Amino acid sequence: MREAFHEQLETVFADLAAICREVENAVHYATESLMTGDAAVAEAVISADAQIDRAAERVEDRAFAILALQQPVAGDLRTVVAALRMVSELERMGDLSVHVAKIARLRVPYLAVPEDARPSMMRMAQVAQDLVARATRVIADRDVDAAAEMEKMDDEMDQLRRTSLTELLSAEWDHGVEPAVDIALLGRYYERIADHAVSVAQRVMYVVTGQQPQATTEP
Amino acid sequence: MREAFHEQLETVFADLAAICREVENAVHYATESLMTGDAAVAEAVISADAQIDRAAERVEDRAFAILALQQPVAGDLRTVVAALRMVSELERMGDLSVHVAKIARLRVPYLAVPEDARPSMMRMAQVAQDLVARATRVIADRDVDAAAEMEKMDDEMDQLRRTSLTELLSAEWDHGVEPAVDIALLGRYYERIADHAVSVAQRVMYVVTGQQPQATTEP
Repeated sequence: MREAFHEQLETVFADLAAICREVENAVHYATESLMTGDAAVAEAVISADAQIDRAAERVEDRAFAILALQQPVAGDLRTVVAALRMVSELERMGDLSVHVAKIARLRVPYLAVPEDARPSMMRMAQVAQDLVARATRVIADRDVDAAAEMEKMDDEMDQLRRTSLTELLSAEWDHGVEPAVDIALLGRYYERIADHAVSVAQRVMYVVTGQQPQATTEP
Repeated sequence: MREAFHEQLETVFADLAAICREVENAVHYATESLMTGDAAVAEAVISADAQIDRAAERVEDRAFAILALQQPVAGDLRTVVAALRMVSELERMGDLSVHVAKIARLRVPYLAVPEDARPSMMRMAQVAQDLVARATRVIADRDVDAAAEMEKMDDEMDQLRRTSLTELLSAEWDHGVEPAVDIALLGRYYERIADHAVSVAQRVMYVVTGQQPQATTEP
């Protein structure tokens, strides 16, 4: 019984890691569509989200089956419930990538982000994508050290977000309202992707170490 | 055993309804601080969020105890897991109210939302608050009819959000970048509060009727 339980749990975590990899792709291509204005890439991100949703449903069903059939208690119970929460967060990260791709698509044939705002936006995108990549490793390998580093990166994200908002509210901003609104929302989406990645990693850490994760940076 | 289970579950749902009422207050006062520029009201919303977080933790602990001690299966299991998800969403709605209050506080002694943009912002805030109030009733009374109406209101929210973005991107917009960015983010926060309220109600419906909720409006 215990052995069956742990095998099934391993499958759930392998599936979660696979979904996290798909989310990493979604973030990557959403950013590509944003930076290049390539509508086809944006469309691909938007339509691929259904796959993430279906994969998430399958993992949910499996986690429910484990709860119902194996009746885990204590740490095992918390691990399965953590998996259910992680799957919701991963699904949400997919949705947020779709939001980025939709802004890119909306501005085609133009680019949503003006030249001089691109470096800070690109940096936010990179930090978000890197955090998602680390979350994958944390899920796949229970890499507690990688999880610990992620919080520092999330602090960088918060700083980038503040810098970006300061830029577009400064007297030097001469691109008008539309790109400012796009950048404010894009920054919000990347920030949320980053927050969820950190939260997913913290849930894994909690499962491994038994220590309650700290509150997320939100609000 | 079954009786103890159902009593404990009733307590969890009563607690969830109480948290939802606190969230309704948070949305109400966050909006008040936004519309009046009253820093003290904004501060009160921000500091009251810790209470919502603590109440959420207590409900989580209780739901875990039910899972561990009562070992529910089938529909009962899904109900407890639904409660765990609802509590995460309610906590998140509290965070989003804090975001609204923080924008209000940031602009004191000015108002974040210019005169002519106030009606549509006020309407978004009202729809969000009304959806949270309905979610409370759905949790407290398992009112399936109230839940069904909520989807239509959420469609109105999506429409309001689009109208608001169109307003601030129009040629007539003469308030510059800062209020536009504030309004875009505020609209996003109210929209997410509304989405979560609908999702919470759908989870209750699912528990009552056994029917899978439809996908949320996001993305």
